[in-house]
Amino acid sequence: SIKSLGNALFFPDKAMPCKSITVPNFVCRRGTACEYAHAQTNLTFFLDCLNSAEFSLDVCIFQLTCNEIAEAVTNAVKRGVRVRIITDANNVDSNGSDIRRLNELGSPNKGFHYNHKMGIQIRCDERVGSQECRTKPHMHHKFCIIDCGQSKKDYTSNTKLMNGSFNWTRQAVLENQDNVMVLEGSVNFPMINAYQQSFNMMWSKYERF
Amino acid sequence: SIKSLGNALFFPDKAMPCKSITVPNFVCRRGTACEYAHAQTNLTFFLDCLNSAEFSLDVCIFQLTCNEIAEAVTNAVKRGVRVRIITDANNVDSNGSDIRRLNELGSPNKGFHYNHKMGIQIRCDERVGSQECRTKPHMHHKFCIIDCGQSKKDYTSNTKLMNGSFNWTRQAVLENQDNVMVLEGSVNFPMINAYQQSFNMMWSKYERF
Ligand SMILES: [Zn+2]
Ligand SMILES: [Zn+2]
Repeated sequence: SIKSLGNALFFPDKAMPCKSITVPNFVCRRGTACEYAHAQTNLTFFLDCLNSAEFSLDVCIFQLTCNEIAEAVTNAVKRGVRVRIITDANNVDSNGSDIRRLNELGSPNKGFHYNHKMGIQIRCDERVGSQECRTKPHMHHKFCIIDCGQSKKDYTSNTKLMNGSFNWTRQAVLENQDNVMVLEGSVNFPMINAYQQSFNMMWSKYERF
Repeated sequence: SIKSLGNALFFPDKAMPCKSITVPNFVCRRGTACEYAHAQTNLTFFLDCLNSAEFSLDVCIFQLTCNEIAEAVTNAVKRGVRVRIITDANNVDSNGSDIRRLNELGSPNKGFHYNHKMGIQIRCDERVGSQECRTKPHMHHKFCIIDCGQSKKDYTSNTKLMNGSFNWTRQAVLENQDNVMVLEGSVNFPMINAYQQSFNMMWSKYERF
């Protein structure tokens, strides 16, 4: 039931990708003067995985501040993928956090989620802004599970699990030594199953953000 | 060439293990009054993996402050395992860090490493105590590779790779939501190979601590 043992990504990248790599039909007119990457990078591989999501994306992430990644998550919501994010309460309002902006996508006030079957929901390990959220332990995972579950009939071989030390931040992309494992397999692959069960347990315990 | 797809460990544990679990022949006399764990925990599984090391242990760890883990590393050195650790310069002197104590094991002044074929060596991503080490990017990995390489003849099927969000700290054991994947396979397993190559590249670039 294993499709592939997957890939390992090792950050940092030398540069963020040029839009000519990440945006369809975008033409870069800067040529060799463009300081962004014009070939695949670890980040573009990572974004391609997020972009491959067809029906579900379950994310467990300590820090989410990288706008390129937040945009890929937004695009997943827009094409009807059910997105669920668990994050650390203490990082919701940290510098550059994309959590509140992503959460707005799922707000009834925006009417956004009425246009999209699944929408986005975000939950936290503690109440945001509470005293305990500054002193209590962290939701420190950095993993996501793509297209796992029973939402698509007979969908059994294209689940992806991404896991490692890589927080979804610009510093992790461009500066840190950081890694992500990408495992691909069936929803029945025990390793993927274990992470999905761990996600589900946290999801049922944590509160809506 | 894959022995097993391995296990996933999800912290926190409810308690640190009692010595009756981790120390051979230790008898706990406290019975039900003992506040430590008397059965296997995520940490005891993790320590068992370190204890299984026969000839090499390559560690890439952002934070190392958990004394139980540092003791397992020390025991590996004592039984002749070649231990190499890469860590983040900014964490060498952080609260409770075990790095300086482990580094002493490999010091010529101690005469320790003369009794043991391989000993222990530690390297950092920056110069410890330097200005840049406080502001520069992090060596943020949390992985280790056990028994990989050509040191034992025909040793091809018992390499382990442990990787995830889990720093080697007491907070990660007892408080955080954190995970470790344990993959077992041959040294030729591409995923294990990728992490070994990444380790080797950092090792050759970084300086002795
Ligand atoms: Zn360009
Ligand atoms: Zn006891």
